[in-house]
Amino acid sequence: MKKILILNGPNLNLLGVREKGIYGDQSFETYFEELKSQFPNLELSYFQSNSEGSLIDKLHEVGFSWDGIVFNAGAYTHTSVALGDAIAAINTPVVEVHISNVHQREAFRHQSYLSKNCKGIIVGFGLDSYRLAIDSFTK
Amino acid sequence: MKKILILNGPNLNLLGVREKGIYGDQSFETYFEELKSQFPNLELSYFQSNSEGSLIDKLHEVGFSWDGIVFNAGAYTHTSVALGDAIAAINTPVVEVHISNVHQREAFRHQSYLSKNCKGIIVGFGLDSYRLAIDSFTK
Amino acid sequence: MKKILILNGPNLNLLGVREKGIYGDQSFETYFEELKSQFPNLELSYFQSNSEGSLIDKLHEVGFSWDGIVFNAGAYTHTSVALGDAIAAINTPVVEVHISNVHQREAFRHQSYLSKNCKGIIVGFGLDSYRLAIDSFTK
Amino acid sequence: MKKILILNGPNLNLLGVREKGIYGDQSFETYFEELKSQFPNLELSYFQSNSEGSLIDKLHEVGFSWDGIVFNAGAYTHTSVALGDAIAAINTPVVEVHISNVHQREAFRHQSYLSKNCKGIIVGFGLDSYRLAIDSFTK
Amino acid sequence: MKKILILNGPNLNLLGVREKGIYGDQSFETYFEELKSQFPNLELSYFQSNSEGSLIDKLHEVGFSWDGIVFNAGAYTHTSVALGDAIAAINTPVVEVHISNVHQREAFRHQSYLSKNCKGIIVGFGLDSYRLAIDSFTK
Amino acid sequence: MKKILILNGPNLNLLGVREKGIYGDQSFETYFEELKSQFPNLELSYFQSNSEGSLIDKLHEVGFSWDGIVFNAGAYTHTSVALGDAIAAINTPVVEVHISNVHQREAFRHQSYLSKNCKGIIVGFGLDSYRLAIDSFTK
Amino acid sequence: MKKILILNGPNLNLLGVREKGIYGDQSFETYFEELKSQFPNLELSYFQSNSEGSLIDKLHEVGFSWDGIVFNAGAYTHTSVALGDAIAAINTPVVEVHISNVHQREAFRHQSYLSKNCKGIIVGFGLDSYRLAIDSFTK
Amino acid sequence: MKKILILNGPNLNLLGVREKGIYGDQSFETYFEELKSQFPNLELSYFQSNSEGSLIDKLHEVGFSWDGIVFNAGAYTHTSVALGDAIAAINTPVVEVHISNVHQREAFRHQSYLSKNCKGIIVGFGLDSYRLAIDSFTK
Amino acid sequence: MKKILILNGPNLNLLGVREKGIYGDQSFETYFEELKSQFPNLELSYFQSNSEGSLIDKLHEVGFSWDGIVFNAGAYTHTSVALGDAIAAINTPVVEVHISNVHQREAFRHQSYLSKNCKGIIVGFGLDSYRLAIDSFTK
Amino acid sequence: MKKILILNGPNLNLLGVREKGIYGDQSFETYFEELKSQFPNLELSYFQSNSEGSLIDKLHEVGFSWDGIVFNAGAYTHTSVALGDAIAAINTPVVEVHISNVHQREAFRHQSYLSKNCKGIIVGFGLDSYRLAIDSFTK
Amino acid sequence: MKKILILNGPNLNLLGVREKGIYGDQSFETYFEELKSQFPNLELSYFQSNSEGSLIDKLHEVGFSWDGIVFNAGAYTHTSVALGDAIAAINTPVVEVHISNVHQREAFRHQSYLSKNCKGIIVGFGLDSYRLAIDSFTK
Amino acid sequence: MKKILILNGPNLNLLGVREKGIYGDQSFETYFEELKSQFPNLELSYFQSNSEGSLIDKLHEVGFSWDGIVFNAGAYTHTSVALGDAIAAINTPVVEVHISNVHQREAFRHQSYLSKNCKGIIVGFGLDSYRLAIDSFTK
Repeated sequence: MKKILILNGPNLNLLGVREKGIYGDQSFETYFEELKSQFPNLELSYFQSNSEGSLIDKLHEVGFSWDGIVFNAGAYTHTSVALGDAIAAINTPVVEVHISNVHQREAFRHQSYLSKNCKGIIVGFGLDSYRLAIDSFTK
Repeated sequence: MKKILILNGPNLNLLGVREKGIYGDQSFETYFEELKSQFPNLELSYFQSNSEGSLIDKLHEVGFSWDGIVFNAGAYTHTSVALGDAIAAINTPVVEVHISNVHQREAFRHQSYLSKNCKGIIVGFGLDSYRLAIDSFTK
Repeated sequence: MKKILILNGPNLNLLGVREKGIYGDQSFETYFEELKSQFPNLELSYFQSNSEGSLIDKLHEVGFSWDGIVFNAGAYTHTSVALGDAIAAINTPVVEVHISNVHQREAFRHQSYLSKNCKGIIVGFGLDSYRLAIDSFTK
Repeated sequence: MKKILILNGPNLNLLGVREKGIYGDQSFETYFEELKSQFPNLELSYFQSNSEGSLIDKLHEVGFSWDGIVFNAGAYTHTSVALGDAIAAINTPVVEVHISNVHQREAFRHQSYLSKNCKGIIVGFGLDSYRLAIDSFTK
Repeated sequence: MKKILILNGPNLNLLGVREKGIYGDQSFETYFEELKSQFPNLELSYFQSNSEGSLIDKLHEVGFSWDGIVFNAGAYTHTSVALGDAIAAINTPVVEVHISNVHQREAFRHQSYLSKNCKGIIVGFGLDSYRLAIDSFTK
Repeated sequence: MKKILILNGPNLNLLGVREKGIYGDQSFETYFEELKSQFPNLELSYFQSNSEGSLIDKLHEVGFSWDGIVFNAGAYTHTSVALGDAIAAINTPVVEVHISNVHQREAFRHQSYLSKNCKGIIVGFGLDSYRLAIDSFTK
Repeated sequence: MKKILILNGPNLNLLGVREKGIYGDQSFETYFEELKSQFPNLELSYFQSNSEGSLIDKLHEVGFSWDGIVFNAGAYTHTSVALGDAIAAINTPVVEVHISNVHQREAFRHQSYLSKNCKGIIVGFGLDSYRLAIDSFTK
Repeated sequence: MKKILILNGPNLNLLGVREKGIYGDQSFETYFEELKSQFPNLELSYFQSNSEGSLIDKLHEVGFSWDGIVFNAGAYTHTSVALGDAIAAINTPVVEVHISNVHQREAFRHQSYLSKNCKGIIVGFGLDSYRLAIDSFTK
Repeated sequence: MKKILILNGPNLNLLGVREKGIYGDQSFETYFEELKSQFPNLELSYFQSNSEGSLIDKLHEVGFSWDGIVFNAGAYTHTSVALGDAIAAINTPVVEVHISNVHQREAFRHQSYLSKNCKGIIVGFGLDSYRLAIDSFTK
Repeated sequence: MKKILILNGPNLNLLGVREKGIYGDQSFETYFEELKSQFPNLELSYFQSNSEGSLIDKLHEVGFSWDGIVFNAGAYTHTSVALGDAIAAINTPVVEVHISNVHQREAFRHQSYLSKNCKGIIVGFGLDSYRLAIDSFTK
Repeated sequence: MKKILILNGPNLNLLGVREKGIYGDQSFETYFEELKSQFPNLELSYFQSNSEGSLIDKLHEVGFSWDGIVFNAGAYTHTSVALGDAIAAINTPVVEVHISNVHQREAFRHQSYLSKNCKGIIVGFGLDSYRLAIDSFTK
Repeated sequence: MKKILILNGPNLNLLGVREKGIYGDQSFETYFEELKSQFPNLELSYFQSNSEGSLIDKLHEVGFSWDGIVFNAGAYTHTSVALGDAIAAINTPVVEVHISNVHQREAFRHQSYLSKNCKGIIVGFGLDSYRLAIDSFTK
């Protein structure tokens, strides 16, 4: 049974609370339960942190044994060379996801330090971005 | 039954022939047959052109009545304001796809004039990018 | 009797259909009839294409014998060196027009590859931009 | 009877004297008489100043009661955020005009701090730019 | 008794008239009376001009004898090296204020030629920015 | 009684120790006692961390119930999109403060990822910047 | 007998008609006859189009069997990523040529999206650029 | 007897008062008397204004009849397209002077909108820059 | 006996595991033992963290009493103003080291926010960079 | 009999020794003998120097009497305004050549300070670039 | 008797021969004789080289004992950090001169690596620039 | 016995004479004697030139037989593509050194055309940079 980590970065703990016009009003925990029922043949885990260092630690922890990582690095996407390096350093393939269409927002959100080292990138489908990303590991 | 158009831009007629290291060695026609069998509940069509004008014409033709467009605009992604405007002008939602991870290539391929007007963007999964994009319309 | 061509570029066939907030809800064909009645002493023609190549062909076709061209190149305004060169290559004077005030929109719409080679530029008066442009040839 | 102000900025008092190759050899006063006879149903006024502050004062003075302003801000077009703000602050619509085709001149003349706040922009028709601008208020 | 000048630049004479969504609907004169009653131990004066030269003259006039200047240079903030030099040239400390949060507006409003030479900068509190600035001189 | 948090970012624990020419020789703890005595009608709290993640956590913790936050993000001001997003995500208004006049220092310190989402910005008054920021919440 | 295609892009059908100061007054058809007589041991063909899509089609058509392509892409040189990709996708070596010295013209003409993928580049020898390019295939 | 105007721009009325480290402690009036005695065969005049508009007016006033202008535009050097245009518009040759070595100061002071239209430029000799500039008219 | 801290930043815990082509296959712990035997007269300590905040904390902890710090900040080198400020704030001299030659890698790795505040910089000697850095403290 | 100089710049003395993957393994002296036998009707000379000054001296020496110069300035191509000026200053036409396709290399090699002043440019044909350049003088 | 060196850089040996439209038709040697007769109380020397290294050597040779250097570095002005450093390293004051008005030429000629370290700069007076520069040493 | 060349570029002959605040007051010759005594098992040589061409010649001369080069290219570091190419062309490894911390100086000194091709880079340790660089060859 494949093991997949969903990794969420800064401010994503506020999903369902924060800026609902952009991110919707469902909490990620609720959505995560839906996801697990949609992929009964995968072992899904979920981790969130607002700390860049903790996200790196987590990538190192699972990145040499698990089968896939679905990573929404939030704002760190646009500023963190260290997270991009962590993805390059591990063996587990990482799919970058974004809930909102970052290309409709400020110019600094159009750049990602992660994309280059990822298996693929999925942007703009709302929470459904996570489902598509997980699905990419079923192939 | 939902009608979905797969629209391919310049040089994508050479898939399976051209630069196999980047794009793989399967022709799109062969792959399209696979796709149709994977989505028996959707009506899938396929159109390719090397001409920016013909691609705009096609978007106009289907863009007020079909249910979804999966668009790989190839190199026009990075240079065509007109295609971006065409997507904004129609009603049918468009998902932008790329076969290769454009973020691993030249800097001018990191910019898209289409993304802003698309429902979502899927990049770097090889031909599987198309399957994921179609799947986004099943939700 | 002076012969004037009104030349419209990509997506302008959707006038009256597309993004009415920006472009209004009148089709160009209807407006063109109005224009003809306003300038009974001019021979007005109208051509639209979504293809850069066809627009260049048209400029070459009329550009050595007609008296004026009113050109709304749409999105090609901002990306087409070739259309700018075509205008420089012909003898007929060209007036560049835009329906919307492009300076209120994205930065890439503030630049024109055509302006330098045009007799004049008229921007932002809605469809009335065409009337003013034609009027410039009556002087 | 509509009241229209023609407002000219720095160095335009030298029209007919200065750089005739670019601006022609007719003084603006002479041309203004022609304009008045061409638009007998409009009340036209003319004001020129080399001072940015005086131009702002004039916009404030007429900008809440007159029907239109035709504004050639000369070199201030390219450097004055304050004039752009003044246009945004008043109610009277302003049409920006330029005698020469600024796109054939230095790059810093291709940018305007005014355009975004104007009803429309008319560039490059020589003195005839003023006639076309006034005509836009007759519609 | 400390003497403080409030100096307002271009278009700020329209406060309460102009763009109320951004600047509020109170005239500065009314607000100035409030300010005077809030600081009975200070001698407050008020001067406004749309002319860069007059603002420089005023800075020179009071800048070697008064105790403080609260300066909202409006649009000149972003374009006037000369006003920045005038602040550097005088002895009286200057506090730069802005009513709106300029960082929510166009990029050219994020830059100030004055800040470097000022005692401090206060931005975005509406008219209350002036009160806080004056208060900084009471310490 | 209004609850106000003073939040200090990286290296500000060294106030009074570090670079006294720029930041003065008073520790923040001593200064904080002064502040509390100056605002007897407010409930003031103080938190400092060198960790971006901990600062985000703190903003989330108080940002839906307290009345105001005075935030000196130190160097993170210029690099942290995540802190800017955290400020946008919460309900409590945030005032950005800086002790030194950042506009007299390196160019990268002239940019703030926070300002856009703040209620107001106060820069350059030394420790007095905090007093003015708190005072803005008394109005 | 080696087969060589001479491929000309937009506006080059006007050679001998257009801007004679830059491009000379000989039509390309006349010159092509000269070229054929100079290279009796090569099979030379000539194709011109103003359409980017048609040029891509032509490159695909001959690019897997002919021996060489001499390509003057005109203005598309500076804007077409798609033509650059087409050259990379085919097997036939392509030599980029320009009649005028593009480095004496506007800055945007100094950049080529084609050069990187070409066998070589020849610029500025007037029509003689074509002869030298063909000659490079005789070696 | 040749007539030469010395024209000084913003803040130069403070010479001898302002920033003595950069500009010295002699007032311009005192220095002007020295200059007159050094050039008994020239008719020297002196005019200073802090207003851009007044400087343009002065250039227009003397610029068609006097023999030379020595112009220190101060901070307007770096921001005023209008003054550059005024110099281009008049017949009298203008020599641009600066007291300090502007190349040792901020980057924005390294650019001049005037230089291109001037007869020559003299920078960095302190007040002696004026003497050298006047001397250039004696040749 | 001098006390020297070796401080390693993000992802450097993976040395010997990660991207061996760039970083070699020796773990830092093994190498650290070698280093200690090479410098018997120095007291060497080693600390690694993936967290920017923890690295700042460590710099503060040792930076007022130890004799030297050898700091490889990894990816934070290129993004952390806060670490640069921490180095400036402490008294202990810091030597910046890099294992790989960062100038052979992406452009964003050519910039360091630390260098300016360091005693010296040593780049590209593989693990030997650490030995040389420590040696610089023996002088 | 026409006199043609082949002029080679820095590091080109190492041809056949240096970076054979880029430049091939033939020494220029050997190749020069081939060239002479291919052009029996031309008088060919060859000069190489690693010194910018010596290359300028050589251009001056032959540039008023010889018939052509084939110049590979190597790395000076991208940095030497002085060599570009020397080419502009002499009468003999100069053809710029490069062995490798500089457009496949670092961005700073895409710019040439020489091209603008040359008769033509030939890039990327290996040593055959020299033959084609010489041939351009036979026409 | 003061000793002054006139130092000329690359291509200036061609004065009177090269591009007479820009530089005039008088050789520098002839002009130097005029200069010597104009300044009988100074000991003037003249040195020219096309080699950057020789110019540095010359600056070192005279730069610790002579009274002044008038330096026209020609094209090296815009590219040579080393010459700028040499001027900073010596004690003798250097005046930078240019014959033509470099601000009317290409943008790369508007920048000087020398100016910052010079006593003053004189530009655009033709050969008379040298006389004025020498004169600056008589004061 | 390993042979190591110390190669110094422009202005470094003035060490101990020039700008002592930056470079110290010891001549390089004196320091070189110290170095030789510190490395009795190495054969050290020293060469300095102000000429870019001579430095290239020297690199070629020793670069195929010696064991190491310690190269302080001074100002040429920041401008010389040719020296960077020379380092790439030879076999002997080169260590780039700088006496001062170039990152504390002008922005143009932060870029090096040499670093990419060097074995390692050592910056900012004063003359001790040379010792460390030589030491890197002892490993």
